[in-house]
Amino acid sequence: MRPLKLSKAFTLMESGPVVLVTTHDGEKDNIMTISWTMVMDFTPVFAITTGEWNHSFAALRKNRECVIAIPTVDLLDKVVGIGTCSGADTDKFARFKLTAVPARLVRPPLIKECLANIECKVIDIVKKHNIVVLEAVAAYRDTARKETRTVHAVGDGTFIVDGRKIDRKKMMAAKLPPGV
Amino acid sequence: MRPLKLSKAFTLMESGPVVLVTTHDGEKDNIMTISWTMVMDFTPVFAITTGEWNHSFAALRKNRECVIAIPTVDLLDKVVGIGTCSGADTDKFARFKLTAVPARLVRPPLIKECLANIECKVIDIVKKHNIVVLEAVAAYRDTARKETRTVHAVGDGTFIVDGRKIDRKKMMAAKLPPGV
Repeated sequence: MRPLKLSKAFTLMESGPVVLVTTHDGEKDNIMTISWTMVMDFTPVFAITTGEWNHSFAALRKNRECVIAIPTVDLLDKVVGIGTCSGADTDKFARFKLTAVPARLVRPPLIKECLANIECKVIDIVKKHNIVVLEAVAAYRDTARKETRTVHAVGDGTFIVDGRKIDRKKMMAAKLPPGV
Repeated sequence: MRPLKLSKAFTLMESGPVVLVTTHDGEKDNIMTISWTMVMDFTPVFAITTGEWNHSFAALRKNRECVIAIPTVDLLDKVVGIGTCSGADTDKFARFKLTAVPARLVRPPLIKECLANIECKVIDIVKKHNIVVLEAVAAYRDTARKETRTVHAVGDGTFIVDGRKIDRKKMMAAKLPPGV
């Protein structure tokens, strides 16, 4: 995992991949799978929708920190598995054979097997809408990884794998934020 | 465009495609390109991040309605073009040769050339975070269209096209919402 400039961290999220979110409740680490996420600012700020129905929410509200880990297609069955059991009765790092790596600025861990990790602080919880607003404070990318394709949840139990990439940098030059 | 069950509309958005959003300011229609979107509920409710910096925001705040249109990869240059000019001085439907089709329950139009369209009402604006919360009231899908691959913005001027689809419906059966 090599440090990634914070000004580039939003590019890990903007395409809408399914992500893993690690939390720490004061005693133990947990992981959840979510695809209800949104970039809100290049600084970067992210929103996720979660609430009482989710076991990780209590830890997120208490500790006010998390790590967004970006998995790739080779990890899909772990991602689906993590999303279909609960941290209330499962140690997900052990069950899914994932390696927790200490983060630098937050208590929840990075996930070593993922393509990228973003350390985040909770800066607000919009209770009315179950929106948690996160500010990234550090980001990392595994630059040695061969499989870099992320997956996108359709929501009906199917997933779309990243296909080919199209470059429109010239057309968009005037609109791109600095440092990307 | 055939009507799509509202309980399936979130599946058009969950994978994180770049979308077009049409608005109407009382006089004319406009279109913006955004990828800062999030599913918030299966009912369905969506969030988008936008604000004063965006010409469409005034129309969205005034009329409190919009249509989310889902473009496919064959429309990418129109999508990028729409995102790099302003409705303040451009009739985007004319310039990008897109067909405005009257919606059923809202004033902004559907876009005929898109794969799907979702009519939405603004149900809240979270000013502090520039989040507009939308509730879908009708949805449509072009079932005759051959090209169905959507595109995902990375944010650096490149775009990822939908690749292959992976089915994990069995693994996720217990977690899928009804009607999907």
